[in-house]
Amino acid sequence: MNIAIHLHKDSKEPVYMQLYHYFKTEILSGKIEAGTKLPSIRYLASVLQISKNTVIDAYQQLWTEGYVESKEKSGYTVVALPSYEYTTTQKKKAEEPQVEHASYSLDFHYGDIDGHNFPINAWKKTMKSVMEDNPSNWVKYGNKQGELSLREELVGYLYRSRGIKTTANNLVITAGTEHLIHLVLSLMDEKALCVGMEEPGYNGVRNVFKERGVPIQPIPVLEEDGHDLSALFNSDCNLAYVTPSHQFPIGKIMPITKRIELLKWAEKRDGFILEDDYDSEFRFQGSPIPSMKAIDQQDRVIYLGTFSKAFMPSLRISYMILPDVLLEKWNGRSKMDSQSSSPLLQQALARFIQNGEFERHIKRMRKVYERKYAILTQCLKRYMGEKVEVIGEKAGLHLVIRVPSKTDESCIMEAKRIGIKIYSTKPYYTEKKTCYPLLLGFGGLEEKEIEEGIQHLSRAWFI
Amino acid sequence: MNIAIHLHKDSKEPVYMQLYHYFKTEILSGKIEAGTKLPSIRYLASVLQISKNTVIDAYQQLWTEGYVESKEKSGYTVVALPSYEYTTTQKKKAEEPQVEHASYSLDFHYGDIDGHNFPINAWKKTMKSVMEDNPSNWVKYGNKQGELSLREELVGYLYRSRGIKTTANNLVITAGTEHLIHLVLSLMDEKALCVGMEEPGYNGVRNVFKERGVPIQPIPVLEEDGHDLSALFNSDCNLAYVTPSHQFPIGKIMPITKRIELLKWAEKRDGFILEDDYDSEFRFQGSPIPSMKAIDQQDRVIYLGTFSKAFMPSLRISYMILPDVLLEKWNGRSKMDSQSSSPLLQQALARFIQNGEFERHIKRMRKVYERKYAILTQCLKRYMGEKVEVIGEKAGLHLVIRVPSKTDESCIMEAKRIGIKIYSTKPYYTEKKTCYPLLLGFGGLEEKEIEEGIQHLSRAWFI
Repeated sequence: MNIAIHLHKDSKEPVYMQLYHYFKTEILSGKIEAGTKLPSIRYLASVLQISKNTVIDAYQQLWTEGYVESKEKSGYTVVALPSYEYTTTQKKKAEEPQVEHASYSLDFHYGDIDGHNFPINAWKKTMKSVMEDNPSNWVKYGNKQGELSLREELVGYLYRSRGIKTTANNLVITAGTEHLIHLVLSLMDEKALCVGMEEPGYNGVRNVFKERGVPIQPIPVLEEDGHDLSALFNSDCNLAYVTPSHQFPIGKIMPITKRIELLKWAEKRDGFILEDDYDSEFRFQGSPIPSMKAIDQQDRVIYLGTFSKAFMPSLRISYMILPDVLLEKWNGRSKMDSQSSSPLLQQALARFIQNGEFERHIKRMRKVYERKYAILTQCLKRYMGEKVEVIGEKAGLHLVIRVPSKTDESCIMEAKRIGIKIYSTKPYYTEKKTCYPLLLGFGGLEEKEIEEGIQHLSRAWFI
Repeated sequence: MNIAIHLHKDSKEPVYMQLYHYFKTEILSGKIEAGTKLPSIRYLASVLQISKNTVIDAYQQLWTEGYVESKEKSGYTVVALPSYEYTTTQKKKAEEPQVEHASYSLDFHYGDIDGHNFPINAWKKTMKSVMEDNPSNWVKYGNKQGELSLREELVGYLYRSRGIKTTANNLVITAGTEHLIHLVLSLMDEKALCVGMEEPGYNGVRNVFKERGVPIQPIPVLEEDGHDLSALFNSDCNLAYVTPSHQFPIGKIMPITKRIELLKWAEKRDGFILEDDYDSEFRFQGSPIPSMKAIDQQDRVIYLGTFSKAFMPSLRISYMILPDVLLEKWNGRSKMDSQSSSPLLQQALARFIQNGEFERHIKRMRKVYERKYAILTQCLKRYMGEKVEVIGEKAGLHLVIRVPSKTDESCIMEAKRIGIKIYSTKPYYTEKKTCYPLLLGFGGLEEKEIEEGIQHLSRAWFI
């Protein structure tokens, strides 16, 4: 065998690795053929003027990875590899430039929250104290059901804020609502499952149903009359996904009559209701709308909550209340799941709720968002007047509007031209329409930006 | 109507809410019947000696929630509710006591990592700097694909440590491997999918396949010969899940011949290989085994990595490299997903890799675990000798052993009696066996604990 190897003894790479790489490449490229005997350790060490141990280490690594086999007393022999086009010159892939985002000066993006009134210092202090108190917890996966401290704080919070009576045992914490839906589906007989889903409705959740092949029965949500439950009641569905406190995206509140009808339906069907209470903290007139879970007498409601709107999306902490019968199933299979939400952040949040900071924050933010909401609706009235229709309740972090004289597409294009990003509600519909209402998220914008934005949009659309 | 309401003007609950609750409860319980007219605002205000606005607020809330309807000039009328057994006396559910864990003095739990050598201060400093630099990022959901800063650092790390040439564009970050598998499945035609899965193999991943109804073809992993790929090659599978660097749980390394055969199989089948490289950082003899992805010429390998073993599980950060063809599909549907891993922690980790702390930590930990591994195997030899068989390579954070004279169940019971927790490999098998090997995780135990543990186990089992 012809050995043309140049060892760099000053290289950062150990000599045995250089030797190993040399043989590996030669074998992979076919230059050293199957059946070839590697030079003896003694011989190679003397030719290359390296120690025998260096050669042994290289040969060992080749042997471990299966490039050579070792036969007693006859040294190492190259194995026969299946032919595989292997180029040693494979270049590091060029990084494709990240898609450039059109530059917008204002973005009515839904899901952004207010950054200026965030209790940065209180949160940093809490994080610091948790990191100092429990360093041993960092090295653990965390409770599969979610940190007990957070579940216990949630029990109190849900009782105070949503009238819900539950236990830490019934709570399951994960990273994000989509993940909760995956979990719920895994507790059900998916083959016998059919789900009623708001139309329009939250596409993130609908997507999970679609992905898992669950048949979907639309529950139409009308701008005037809200949920039309008749199609659901006439269907074979045994699960219904609803956002009763503030329907997403339309904004309707489900009245008590329909809530009771839905609860009775679930009982009769031996089914469940997924109540997604994503933004109920922020209602600007009167009190927050009570949750369905609070009046659920038969344990038929799976309540879904999140800290993404009320606190901060970057925590990635969502939770659900499982009815006892589903909890039992969860206990049966939970050993296989790992917790997806960081236990470190969960512990910090538990402490933040415990010391009252969280509810103080919510109270403060309700006023902040109320003002933004008021400014947005006032500006729409002042600058656009009759030319737009405002849809939805005095709540949440978004508003739906319709511009009867234009399509959503042209509204969006005209806004883009002046550097303002607005959104269509199209993704929330499965039904094809010629034109969809528009969605204005206002949580992340400053009051001044909201006013300027609407003023400029009015000019772009109507002048 | 008989109004028997006692208002507490000193209560924390606003008077209008007390009034609202009174009516709501009376209506729900049927004490105020459908069709009943609520007292006029003026009348009720004067009777109760409260302001008219208080009454208006209460009535408004009742109206918003659909308990009453308002007819022009005739005030508010109670709506007809479907009958629903509603008890106002529903007690707050008693908290069930959390399942008490048997008290173990030693736990050979797999997945725990070393807590004593964790770079607590360096990590705290990094977290602090990230929190101070980017407070505006807290209020965002974070990049759906994962923070760009972390993906960029990963490109460098994967090249340096695993010989992988990829781009930040091809990387997707989520919270946990199970989540990655869900994502991968959503990019494929699930109806045409059949997956080859190691037997025994990681149950967390197998469970996702099962849950989603993907047919599974076992790939037997033999203690002597490792992966037996023939069943896979003769099947209709077009996806294969493998842990080639350190098979979980058996510990075998897949030799280069089989790797190439598998790569060629994927190419021929137009299929993909899921390479789960969960603990490749920790190999104690020779160099880390190269990844399959590093020799994947046809972009057929979906590479899965995690920071749970190499750094800390509580971060909940896993990642994968998507082949270009899957990346395109991901781009097409990614708008619907939200990022499940905290962007705050991702940014801190990116900085930790960038300033070299992460790789210094890995280097340190390799030595720590190497010592623990050495002590574990030495003690097994010293105290148990021929009575146990040690299976697996000199790598990772766990070891598989077999006690030929006993069943796994009796080993576990006898260990429990002396306060030591050990585990069966049973959950990783689908095949029923009369007896399974045992799994000893040693990452989270101190050297002294390992020695004591094995000494005590030896006494419990063999004396």
